[in-house]
Amino acid sequence: MTQPAITLDVVGIGNALVDVLSHENDQFLTDHDLVKGSMALVDTERAGSLYDDMGPATEISGGSVANTMVGVASFGGTAGFVGRVRDDELGDVFAHDIRRSGVHFETPPATNGPPTGRCLIVVTPDAERTLSTYLGAAAEIGPDDVSAELIGSAQVTYLEGYLFDQPRAKEAFRAAARHAHDAGRRVALTLSDGFCVDRHRDDFLALIEHEVDILFANESEICTLYEVDSFDAALQHVAHQCEIAALTRSAKGSVVIKGDEVHVIDVHAVKGAVVDSTGAGDQYAAGFLYGFTNGYDLGRCGQLGSLGASEVISHLGARPEISLAELAASALR
Amino acid sequence: MTQPAITLDVVGIGNALVDVLSHENDQFLTDHDLVKGSMALVDTERAGSLYDDMGPATEISGGSVANTMVGVASFGGTAGFVGRVRDDELGDVFAHDIRRSGVHFETPPATNGPPTGRCLIVVTPDAERTLSTYLGAAAEIGPDDVSAELIGSAQVTYLEGYLFDQPRAKEAFRAAARHAHDAGRRVALTLSDGFCVDRHRDDFLALIEHEVDILFANESEICTLYEVDSFDAALQHVAHQCEIAALTRSAKGSVVIKGDEVHVIDVHAVKGAVVDSTGAGDQYAAGFLYGFTNGYDLGRCGQLGSLGASEVISHLGARPEISLAELAASALR
Repeated sequence: MTQPAITLDVVGIGNALVDVLSHENDQFLTDHDLVKGSMALVDTERAGSLYDDMGPATEISGGSVANTMVGVASFGGTAGFVGRVRDDELGDVFAHDIRRSGVHFETPPATNGPPTGRCLIVVTPDAERTLSTYLGAAAEIGPDDVSAELIGSAQVTYLEGYLFDQPRAKEAFRAAARHAHDAGRRVALTLSDGFCVDRHRDDFLALIEHEVDILFANESEICTLYEVDSFDAALQHVAHQCEIAALTRSAKGSVVIKGDEVHVIDVHAVKGAVVDSTGAGDQYAAGFLYGFTNGYDLGRCGQLGSLGASEVISHLGARPEISLAELAASALR
Repeated sequence: MTQPAITLDVVGIGNALVDVLSHENDQFLTDHDLVKGSMALVDTERAGSLYDDMGPATEISGGSVANTMVGVASFGGTAGFVGRVRDDELGDVFAHDIRRSGVHFETPPATNGPPTGRCLIVVTPDAERTLSTYLGAAAEIGPDDVSAELIGSAQVTYLEGYLFDQPRAKEAFRAAARHAHDAGRRVALTLSDGFCVDRHRDDFLALIEHEVDILFANESEICTLYEVDSFDAALQHVAHQCEIAALTRSAKGSVVIKGDEVHVIDVHAVKGAVVDSTGAGDQYAAGFLYGFTNGYDLGRCGQLGSLGASEVISHLGARPEISLAELAASALR
C-alpha cells in the first residue's frame, strides 16, 4: 500500500453538533436535575422538554473535537474533521461554519434518520456550562466514514472520548486509530468529561496504554480515570501510561508530561471577565496540537494551549472569534 | 360586535426571520455589491451564494418588529406578534425564542412552501450592519393571519414597513390597521429603511396622513420620505402629517413630536464599545411603545427608547440580553 502524503496537521473525529446556548440561573439546574459542569446524553423527548424550558437561545456550531479543529485552523494549521450531520438546516449551518473556518470537512450528510445533533448548553452566572447533548445524526458515524487515506494524510488523528457512547462511533474510533498507526502517524485522545470516563474507564485505560500517543484531560477527568483524589497521584499514574499527556487545571494552568520531561504552564491572563468557560479545553487542545505538529517544544505547545483557552472564555461560544495566529504572534514573542 | 377587552399593550405584525450574523471586512461588501447599512431583499439563489461566502456565523432570532415586541416584553409590557415561519428547524428556533421572551405568538407555521426566512447580516469593523433578507415563509403572511379580535385586544398595533414588499403581507397590514381603528385602537408604523421608503413612498405618505397615529423613522428614512436634505425640513413636514412621530438620529439622539409639543432626547450613554448597531431602532421603538402604552409622557417615552437602544448596541444581536425593566429602574429614576 502506498503511504498517503501528509497534507494535514490534524484530523479530528467527533460528534458534529450545533450548540444551543441560553443563560439561566442555578435554580434552572436544580429544577431540571442537571449537574453543573457535566455533559449528559439526552433522548429526543428530554431534549424537547429542556429546550421548551430554556430561555431565548443562540445557535452556534459546536462539538468538542470540531471546535478544536477550528482552533487549529485559526492558529494557522491545516485541519480536517470527520463527523455526521443530517441534510437539514442545522446540518447546513454546521457544514457552512466549519468549512468557512478553514477546516476540511467532507463527511456526507445523512439523508434519513434523526436530525442533526445539538447540544443544549445552560450558562449560569458563574460562567459554568452544563451540557445536555442530543446526538441525533452524529451517532450515525461509523467505520466507513474514516478512510485510511484521510487518516494517513494527517500527522495526528484526534479522537473524542464521547465517541465511546455509541457502538458504531466506537468502531469508527478504533478504525481511525488503526489507520493512523498503520501509516506511522500519531493518535491523540481527549477524555471529554468525567462522566464519560466513568462510563468507559476500562476501555480508556487499555486505549491509553496501547494506542494513544497524546492524551488530553482536565483534572477531574484524569483523577476519575485513575480513581484517585489528588492531581499529583493521577500525574504519577499517567506518566507511565502514554507518551505525552497534557492535563488542564482551569485557573491553576496545565501540566505537560512526557516521561521525565515535565512542564508546568500558567494560564494566559484574560482581559476582562470570563464570560463562558465553554470550549476552554477544546481550544487548549487546538493550541497544543498546532504547536506539536508545527515543531514547537512541549512547553511552547502548552503555552499555545493556554492562549487558545484564554481567547475562547472571554466570549459566549466555544470557537475563537479572532485569529489565534495573530493573537499568538502578538502575545507570545 | 362586542369590543374585545384590552389584554396587550402592543401587537406587532412583521417578518418572522432568523438572523445569521458574521463579521466581515469592508472588502466583503464591495465584492458582493452590498450597500453598507442597507437592507436588500434576496432570492434563494443570491441568499445561498452570499451565505456560502460569509464566514462562520451565529444564528439568533430576529425580524425588526419581532425584536421590538421582545423589547416591550423585556420592559415589562405585554406584547404579541403575528408573523409566519415554516414547520422547520429555524421556524422552531424563532417560535421558541419569541415565546420564551414572553411574547404571545400563535401564528401557525406553514406546512409547505418556502423555508423559514432568514436575514444574512454582515457586521463590519465599524459596527455597521448590512442586511440581505430572504423572506421565505415570512412572505406568506396574509390578511387571514390578523384577526379583528387579536388586533382589538391591543392598545397599539405596530406595523413593519417591510410588509409592503409583498402583496399579501401588504393586505395583512391594511387589514390590521382597519381592525385597530374599528376597535378604537392606535396604529404605529416603522418605515423600516430608506430603500423600503423609496420603493413605497406614495403608499407610505397616504398611510401616514390617514391611518398612522405613531410614526417611527430614522433620519435617513424620514428625509427620504419627504425627499428633503435636512432633518429639520423633514421635521416640519411630519409635524403636520401624523399625530405623533418619534425620529431617531443615531449618536445625535432622537426627536419626539406631537403637534407643537417637541422633545429633543439625548442618547443614553453606552458602557464600553458599540459592538453592533443591529436593532437600535427596534429597541428604541420598544421603549417608546412600552412608555406610551403605560401612561408615560412623551419625553419619558423617548428616554425609554434611548435606553433600549443603548443596551442592544452593546452586544452582537438585536434583542436585549438583560431585563430592560431592571435597567430602566436603575438608570431612569
